[in-house]
Amino acid sequence: MTPQRFATLKKVLDQRQPDLTVVMDGVHKPHNFNAIIRTCDAVGVFEAHYIPVTERYRELTNTGKGSEKYVYAHRHNHFSEIGPVLKNQGYQLLAAHLSDEAVDFRAIDFTRPTALVMGAELEGLNPKTAQQVDQHVIIPMQGMVESLNVSVACAIMLYEAQRQRLAAGLYDNIRLDEETYRKTLFEWCWP
Amino acid sequence: MTPQRFATLKKVLDQRQPDLTVVMDGVHKPHNFNAIIRTCDAVGVFEAHYIPVTERYRELTNTGKGSEKYVYAHRHNHFSEIGPVLKNQGYQLLAAHLSDEAVDFRAIDFTRPTALVMGAELEGLNPKTAQQVDQHVIIPMQGMVESLNVSVACAIMLYEAQRQRLAAGLYDNIRLDEETYRKTLFEWCWP
Ligand SMILES: C[S@@+](CC[C@H](N)C(=O)[O-])C[C@H]1O[C@@H](n2cnc3c(N)ncnc32)[C@H](O)[C@@H]1O
Ligand SMILES: C[S@@+](CC[C@H](N)C(=O)[O-])C[C@H]1O[C@@H](n2cnc3c(N)ncnc32)[C@H](O)[C@@H]1O
Repeated sequence: MTPQRFATLKKVLDQRQPDLTVVMDGVHKPHNFNAIIRTCDAVGVFEAHYIPVTERYRELTNTGKGSEKYVYAHRHNHFSEIGPVLKNQGYQLLAAHLSDEAVDFRAIDFTRPTALVMGAELEGLNPKTAQQVDQHVIIPMQGMVESLNVSVACAIMLYEAQRQRLAAGLYDNIRLDEETYRKTLFEWCWP
Repeated sequence: MTPQRFATLKKVLDQRQPDLTVVMDGVHKPHNFNAIIRTCDAVGVFEAHYIPVTERYRELTNTGKGSEKYVYAHRHNHFSEIGPVLKNQGYQLLAAHLSDEAVDFRAIDFTRPTALVMGAELEGLNPKTAQQVDQHVIIPMQGMVESLNVSVACAIMLYEAQRQRLAAGLYDNIRLDEETYRKTLFEWCWP
């Protein structure tokens, strides 16, 4: 470990956002999974969550250009195992979902503790999950297609979160608690 | 063709942006190519361009969820076949490129006629192309990975363009010239 490398790891940890997370509910194509984890890393998501579609698709493995090492992805069997937990921790649960009640993502306050739930490639959001979130959020489209690619949709919203959090100074001070910071730095240093 | 369908086609055409385009220079994974065309459709890009990497990868075919019908993608052998043409038509040529001269994409005026050039998945932007554009543009990142997925990066910038163009009213009036409008509506109506 060079001093430069150590400084880089610390700089990234200094900017991690423990109160911004993504829940992938049924996302099953590895390239989408990986692209999402990679974007999570880029905007400072500290940890993510996923619910695999075990019946039909092979288990997801983290192979996102090394980003899987820096964004821990927790596996759950159902949204009900993680949604209420995040809710209790004070997160607003937002589902990217093309429903009639959905609000424009640009109207959302992403500086609040936020969990962004993404639906599956073909089926979209699980209807049960749709009922367990606080709000549906939509990215407005002017074209013929009915939806965006899921990793694309996730990135557009995460970068709106990043924009708002940059403006609010949320990347300027360490946001992780001391113990988590120390523990994580140790793990990142020792491969 | 139902009257509803005809109205949808017209509404989409009414919002097409003839002065916003994407040039994929060496993007070769079909899922990235398709995701980019799909995002182009969603933000109203009228036509796109691509330079395939014929030496090593199979030819790209348009299979982007039907969006290939609504965003025509022109094929070129080299960037020099399309860059100067767009430049002469008054486009600013922006390359999404992680160089030292790159400016933050949020500082760009995307209401101007704009061509956004995207680089290849592994190699990034062709060095020759990098010299032929007006500006390098970067999406700031706070993580460990060195870049975003190319379709993700393209979408983040296109949605910044959409945001600015919505604010400037560029989706409120028909932007295509009469002949192109009529010709395209005809093609879209007859499969
Ligand atoms: C390919 S889409 C699923 C399309 C599915 N046919 C549907 O109608 O929901 C996969 C996921 O991407 C997200 N998504 C795609 N486009 C979106 C948009 N414009 N607004 C919000 N979320 C979007 C949603 O989470 C969605 O469940
Ligand atoms: C996976 S990246 C290529 C990475 C390559 N190793 C490099 O250093 O350029 C593929 C393309 O996505 C675009 N891209 C990815 N992340 C970007 C970012 N943060 N800012 C601007 N463009 C980006 C660029 O067009 C790039 O050529």
